[in-house]
Formats: sequence, C-alpha cells, structure tokens
Amino acid sequence: MSLIVVGSVAFDTIETPYGKVENVLGGSAIYFSYGASFFSPISLVGIVGQDFSLDEELELLKARNIDIKGLKIENGKTFRWSGRYVGDMCQAETLSVSLGVFGKFQPLIPPYYRNCSYVFLANGSPKLQKKILDQIKHPKLVFCDTMNYWINNEKKALLTLIEQIDGLIVNNDEVRLLTGMYHTVTAAREILKWGPKMLIIKKGEHGALLITKDDFFAIPGYPIEVVRDPTGAGDSFAGGMMGFLAKTNNLSIKNLKKSLLYGSVIASFTIEDFGLEKLKQTNYKQVEARYQRLLSMITL
Amino acid sequence: MSLIVVGSVAFDTIETPYGKVENVLGGSAIYFSYGASFFSPISLVGIVGQDFSLDEELELLKARNIDIKGLKIENGKTFRWSGRYVGDMCQAETLSVSLGVFGKFQPLIPPYYRNCSYVFLANGSPKLQKKILDQIKHPKLVFCDTMNYWINNEKKALLTLIEQIDGLIVNNDEVRLLTGMYHTVTAAREILKWGPKMLIIKKGEHGALLITKDDFFAIPGYPIEVVRDPTGAGDSFAGGMMGFLAKTNNLSIKNLKKSLLYGSVIASFTIEDFGLEKLKQTNYKQVEARYQRLLSMITL
Repeated sequence: MSLIVVGSVAFDTIETPYGKVENVLGGSAIYFSYGASFFSPISLVGIVGQDFSLDEELELLKARNIDIKGLKIENGKTFRWSGRYVGDMCQAETLSVSLGVFGKFQPLIPPYYRNCSYVFLANGSPKLQKKILDQIKHPKLVFCDTMNYWINNEKKALLTLIEQIDGLIVNNDEVRLLTGMYHTVTAAREILKWGPKMLIIKKGEHGALLITKDDFFAIPGYPIEVVRDPTGAGDSFAGGMMGFLAKTNNLSIKNLKKSLLYGSVIASFTIEDFGLEKLKQTNYKQVEARYQRLLSMITL
Repeated sequence: MSLIVVGSVAFDTIETPYGKVENVLGGSAIYFSYGASFFSPISLVGIVGQDFSLDEELELLKARNIDIKGLKIENGKTFRWSGRYVGDMCQAETLSVSLGVFGKFQPLIPPYYRNCSYVFLANGSPKLQKKILDQIKHPKLVFCDTMNYWINNEKKALLTLIEQIDGLIVNNDEVRLLTGMYHTVTAAREILKWGPKMLIIKKGEHGALLITKDDFFAIPGYPIEVVRDPTGAGDSFAGGMMGFLAKTNNLSIKNLKKSLLYGSVIASFTIEDFGLEKLKQTNYKQVEARYQRLLSMITL
C-alpha cells in the first residue's frame, strides 16, 4: 500500500567519539524513507535549497525506490544541523541549526498523494503536522513523532493532532512530559484515552514497547557492538515499522508486533555507522537475518 | 532439588519518596530465600545477633518453608543498613551501615547441606564466597552475585571465584567495571571466557538478559505502576530464578529462559511495597498469573 512521509531533509554535521562527518544527507524524512525502502515504495514530501546536489543525493534516493516528486527545491539553503554526541551518546548536543528553506515549509500534498494509505508525520510543529494530515483523504494508518520542544510550546495543538492519529512514536521522557506521569504504562494509558490506538515507545539500547488498550509488547534493542552514530535511529525505526506495515497491509496485533521488530532491526543498522553509510551497504537478506535473530532473543 | 543461599540477614531502615520503614527484616539471603520459597524449599546460611527476635522473624521464615538451621545466632548485633532512594530510585544512597556480627561471618556449611545441588552465593567478599563454595561437594548449579566494591578491591579473588561458578548475576555497570568494556554483549562474551556458562544481567525497569555462549535472551521488566521500594529486587529476582530451577531441576536453555521470567515476576512484587511486605501478601497463583502476562508481552 502507498506510504508517505512528510518531514525534514537536511545536511548534518555530526561528531561522536568515533569520528566526524560534515554535511551528510540526513533529516527525519530521509532516515524514515531509507528505513521504509527496504520493504515498500515510499513517497517523500519535503523541501530543500539550491545547494542540494541533484546528481548525487537525488540519485541515491531514486535508487532506493524513494519517490521524490514531492521534494520541493526552493531558492535558499537546505536545512543544516550540527550536533555532537558524548559519553553514552544517549542525547545529541545541538551545536548549530540553520533552518534555511525548511523554516518556511508549508507542505502542500500533491494531489496524486492525497489517497495515500500509510502516513508518517515526522517531528515538526503540530500545527503543520495537522495541516498535512488534513490534506490526506482516507488514511488507513497515521503515525506521528514529536519532541519536548513541541510538548512544551505547542501542547494544545499537539493534543488536537493526537486525537486524529493512530499511533504516537515517542521516548520515555516525552511520554512523561506529555502526561506529567512518571510511570510509562500509566502515562501510555492516559495518552490512549486521548485518541490514538497505540503508543510506540522507543527506549534506545533497551528496545521498544508497543502499547495498545489490550496489549503490551516489549522487545530488546538489537545488541550492537559499537554504536558509532545514533543520528536517525528513531526515524529509521519508524520507517522500518511503517515500511513493513505498508508492504504487508495487515494491521493485526501480531503484524504490528512484527513491525516493531523490523523497525528495531533497521535502527540497529543505522547506528552502526555515520549518517546513512551502514544502511547504504545493507541488503534485505541482512535485514531478514537480523530479524530472525532478534525474534530468537525473545523466544522461549 | 536442594537449594542453599549464603548471605546477609539484616535489619533495614529504608526511605523512599513513598515513605519510610525502620528496622525491617532484610538482607540478601532473606530476599533470596523469600523469592525462592514460592517454588522450592530453601536452606539459609547466615548470621544474626541476639537482637534478632526469635518469635517474629524466625516464624515468618519457617512459615515460608525456609530452613534456618544454618542461621547462627551470635553474641552481638544483627547487621543493620540504612539507605535512601531519591528521584528515579535507581540507586540507593547508603546512610549508615553497622556490620555487627556479620563482620566476623565465617560460614561453616553444616554437613547436612554439603550435598546441596543449587547454590547461591549472595553479594559478599569473593574470598568468603569461594570458601563457602569449596565446602559444597558436587553442586549442580552455582550462581553468584557481586558488586562494584569487590570488583574494585578484590578483583583477583573475584576472578578466581568466577572460574568456578556457572552463572554470574550482575548489572550493566558491574559488567563494564569488571571487563573495562562498554558494550554489554562484548563484555559478557569476555566474562564467559573466564569460566561461567552464563551471565544474567539485571537492568531494573528494562528487564534482564541471559547470555550464554550460544544464546541471547532478553525480557522486559514487568511493568509496575508504582515502585515504592527497590530494596531486595536483585536478590529476590535471583531467588525466583533459582527457586524455579531447583523445583524443576532442568537446566535446558528453555527452562533457564523461563527462570528469568519467574525471577523478574518475583522482583516485580518485591518493589511494589517496602521490604518484604508485598511478597508476604503474594501467593503462587498471583506469581503464575504475572508470569503468563509477562510471557505474553514477549510473544508475537
């Protein structure tokens, strides 16, 4: 089934204890698309500036079956982010942000995407996320990401959006900030009352949780020996999940659980090298092997 | 099969954001025994002072089928510990320790325990742990706990002990400290080279891992709405594991995985109230119900 992501396309400069890369292709929509592309065609809606190299970057995306008809090229500069991870690399320290053309992003969903079934609203202003969602006619599954900034500054708009979506993908801190409740499950139950059918909680090396009204499913993180760069873990996780769901077009609880495993597998590749490097070198057979291994880790 | 624990018996004074209790029965051997007693008879070897109330505490243990013939009562005072948990309650801040008679504990295993099959060496000096182990004739399964203090101060003795045991039960920080390696799985593989057949890694709310040469098994923590007091979580977890293994006397990888789930279930009850309060009010049917629920949380 058709899958669409709306989010940022960026050039990232990333420093970790394992090295540094400058101006590599990144952004939420890119990581999501790349993760999803292992399973399904995917349409990307975003914006870049004229510094975006048509030859290199666009060819890279096309080669992955990522449809970029919705990627607008505008006068100005592409979104640039520079960050550093230290210590246990759990959180990035932002060194600089230059929004460029992304600062005036008002996504108009092209007509040929408005019948899309699977929709991912990457992290962004909830007002903008809602505007995007309102353009999609009859989505079958809408997942949404957010972050502490929006919870603190646009909570009302975020709650309005949350009423309309099927699944919220967040981390433990965000769940607590959103509800004011410390305990994950209590907080998740509260959020489920607001509208979504499910909550996906990302816990980094500790894996992820899928919580619905009736189900609670937990998976460990796929054990990676060396995490070189955590950038894009969350978005490629979401991409893996939704790519698998769009491919199988099956929203049974069992299939949702499977999608969590596939998302975790994709994220495990992402963090093994800088930017998209590892994902570029990964094939579906390797994804499947890691999926089977992760499944065995939770099987009695 | 016969199960024995050697460790501390203490009076604890515990403060958490949920309240305070004074001089309640605690100590590693007590929590372990209590956890194990849901599954199997258990023999406790330890030492207390004359301030240990024979009527109350001993009756409580006997009622749980905990054999205390090996609990020595000596002139002096029982081990007392006072600690406080704040914030996310991940770590206790020790306010005071008074070793009392435990300071001169030189456990002589009574002859009738020396054929014991299942042995738990609770946290303590590795030299003492080895002395204890050397008195057991042909143990079938030996699990051992330790802590940062022994890793820092008696590492050589600890490594000698580790060669002789079947399973080490530790947390992530201890694994890292012991090996100087950051990544859990790499570190675990290193420790497995030193002798043990398995490593059990306790991760608190994030569950636990069982790592052997050929297997990697991960479970989430049983989701508890309110954690009132984490004291005893690790020891009662170990007690649940070994109690189940002693009862079933089956060391297949599948049964070891099951034991991890049972251990986690026991710990989940422990932390719901202060000291042993919740465990005292818990019956086997409730343990089994929570086991089934935890199992469902990792089942596709």
